[in-house]
Amino acid sequence: ALRLRVFDLNCWAIRYLSKRRQERIRLIGDMLRQEDFDLVLLQEVWSEQDYSDLKVKLGGCYPFSHYFRSGVIGSGLCVFSRFRILDTLLYQYSLNGYPYMLQHGDWFCGKSVGLVIIRISGIIFNIYVTHLHAEYCREKDAYLPHRLVQAWELAQFIRHTSKAADVVLLGGDLNMHPEDVGIRLLRGWTGLRDAFAEAAHFEGCEDGCTLVPNNCFTDKSELLPFPLGIRIDYILYKAISSFMVKCEELKTTTGAAPGMDVPFSDHEAVMATLHIQRQRQAAGATLATAEPMLVDVVTEARTEVAVGLRAAQRQRYSSGRMALLALLLLLLQAVAALGALAGLDAGQPFPKLSFCLLAFLAIGILLLATGLHLFHTMEVKMLHSTEEQMRMVLQTLQE
Amino acid sequence: ALRLRVFDLNCWAIRYLSKRRQERIRLIGDMLRQEDFDLVLLQEVWSEQDYSDLKVKLGGCYPFSHYFRSGVIGSGLCVFSRFRILDTLLYQYSLNGYPYMLQHGDWFCGKSVGLVIIRISGIIFNIYVTHLHAEYCREKDAYLPHRLVQAWELAQFIRHTSKAADVVLLGGDLNMHPEDVGIRLLRGWTGLRDAFAEAAHFEGCEDGCTLVPNNCFTDKSELLPFPLGIRIDYILYKAISSFMVKCEELKTTTGAAPGMDVPFSDHEAVMATLHIQRQRQAAGATLATAEPMLVDVVTEARTEVAVGLRAAQRQRYSSGRMALLALLLLLLQAVAALGALAGLDAGQPFPKLSFCLLAFLAIGILLLATGLHLFHTMEVKMLHSTEEQMRMVLQTLQE
Repeated sequence: ALRLRVFDLNCWAIRYLSKRRQERIRLIGDMLRQEDFDLVLLQEVWSEQDYSDLKVKLGGCYPFSHYFRSGVIGSGLCVFSRFRILDTLLYQYSLNGYPYMLQHGDWFCGKSVGLVIIRISGIIFNIYVTHLHAEYCREKDAYLPHRLVQAWELAQFIRHTSKAADVVLLGGDLNMHPEDVGIRLLRGWTGLRDAFAEAAHFEGCEDGCTLVPNNCFTDKSELLPFPLGIRIDYILYKAISSFMVKCEELKTTTGAAPGMDVPFSDHEAVMATLHIQRQRQAAGATLATAEPMLVDVVTEARTEVAVGLRAAQRQRYSSGRMALLALLLLLLQAVAALGALAGLDAGQPFPKLSFCLLAFLAIGILLLATGLHLFHTMEVKMLHSTEEQMRMVLQTLQE
Repeated sequence: ALRLRVFDLNCWAIRYLSKRRQERIRLIGDMLRQEDFDLVLLQEVWSEQDYSDLKVKLGGCYPFSHYFRSGVIGSGLCVFSRFRILDTLLYQYSLNGYPYMLQHGDWFCGKSVGLVIIRISGIIFNIYVTHLHAEYCREKDAYLPHRLVQAWELAQFIRHTSKAADVVLLGGDLNMHPEDVGIRLLRGWTGLRDAFAEAAHFEGCEDGCTLVPNNCFTDKSELLPFPLGIRIDYILYKAISSFMVKCEELKTTTGAAPGMDVPFSDHEAVMATLHIQRQRQAAGATLATAEPMLVDVVTEARTEVAVGLRAAQRQRYSSGRMALLALLLLLLQAVAALGALAGLDAGQPFPKLSFCLLAFLAIGILLLATGLHLFHTMEVKMLHSTEEQMRMVLQTLQE
């Protein structure tokens, strides 16, 4: 029997943007050093300097760590561990918002799932840490298809890489409410169980919420429809071979850090104490969700992905048309210019300045629309591919 | 004991660009239908229509197939199988050339490795198909660091996803000569063995070459330093659990298709007959290369990646500087324009047309340089990350 204490937090450590970042990172480091967890999974550690500072501070109690680099800004993911990290792997999600949505910025983060493998007294742990695309508007969530593709790829990545593991653990900010289709898909397709739902003992924010109005950094207006807050940070787990995992205790922070006036982050931390025991008989099926229910979930997810696919196809079409129109305008201008050079124009010459401005405008639109067209072509490819994979899985499940 | 016949070919089926594409795809389909392989791994099937045509034609003898979509154009990878495909996964390489190298175009293909899992009489096969970045100039290969990152990611992906497999098989155009560091890295780090080197019986182009001067579609000038041709298409394999794999026979095509005046592709096809047998005792270590040799290979690869990292850092720096200069010019122009509006300019006004042209030029350079800067930032991230992973592996190996 083994007891494992896991800590998970979205640190909200965006350089120049997050409030009181350095102070909070210092607080987080102090607390982690005091509390002495076995495993620490962090998200939104965007600055490598913050990671290095934490690494120096935590070197004593967490001698092993890994920072996952990706995208322009980074994945923001890192892991600190009391146990030697045997191996790592990063999988970058194929869809992650739009580069032109600068105000959202998710695209630049290269959202990914990171895997670290550790062994504790002969038990192989596959530890996954991830952060999915944010939800900016729940009523009209333009990023739902992308987040579903991410949830699907996350589930597939876990399934394919965890076959030799004894215990699988996933921690992270999934940006989905517990009843959302993406969570049900992830849990159903991997068999992962929700530490909050399984915990024998719970202490923390009501309903296990991790984005609460009580936290001084959260946007109160966004949480208006949810007076208790929302739960979007998770610790999920399962045993694969002849082991059994139970969640003895789950805790969350509740706004301010104990004895401090500033919370660790705008998210609450999730802390689980897991109890791992060798079982006499190897466990049978690993799918937690019964197959008929799984069929429903995959069907629902596939419908949403198909909606996203149609939207992406429309955007691909309209950006392609725009590029063609700009090209046409440029060609017309070229003909007019050649005509003017040959002295063929009858009436007043077109004013040079406006002519040039128009040409530059056309070139600008042409480049922009071509870029958009290429991007949406990729988007269509990945949505199409995910939809087809889901269709294949449904076919297999129904057989 | 089981006998498996595997076919691998880079089909060179680029729409509008590849010579006699449709005719060749028809020929390939006819031959595959006649020959009745167990497994067909194809690359450069860029057009989904070509895949669909092949699928229709081969439906009878290869009832199962999968097409891997990725990037703008697609990954070009597909698999046809006599056996049911149980599961699939795609991993897109994090680096794959430069989007502005339009004449090379690799970036737009979203080069990837595709995995399909099949089971034949209870034996689990993990089949990987891939196509790495092309080599355009062997003397001064600007893409070597990217190809090495790809080889490393390929090896890592295979290691992490094949743990429950009995037999691992990799087919594809690796764009590396047999003695290149990338191949040695891939083979050393995964333990995969080269079907050509292991084959009991070989028939085909001398030295197993797959890009030969004898083929009417190959560029003769590129092959001048290699009068026999080069070998860049491979079938690699290994057994993981208590199985043993032997290559009974390896064949390549030799230029023209038998009885035809046109070859299947500019590459030669590689065809292996593998013999899989259950072993009494489970095999021990799976690393084919002895550890001291592996240390040398990883060190060599790491050096090359570090060279690429420094080049990427230089490019990131110079594109950032260019963007700053363009911004500065724009600001100067804005000040001058405001001055002119306020009637402050003393001498002759700057001609309007040139002023506008200059502003547009500055905007254009600013956008372009910013885009480049972002791209090279990502490149630096991934090269740095790979170099660090290699460093970690070296540390573990040396301990």
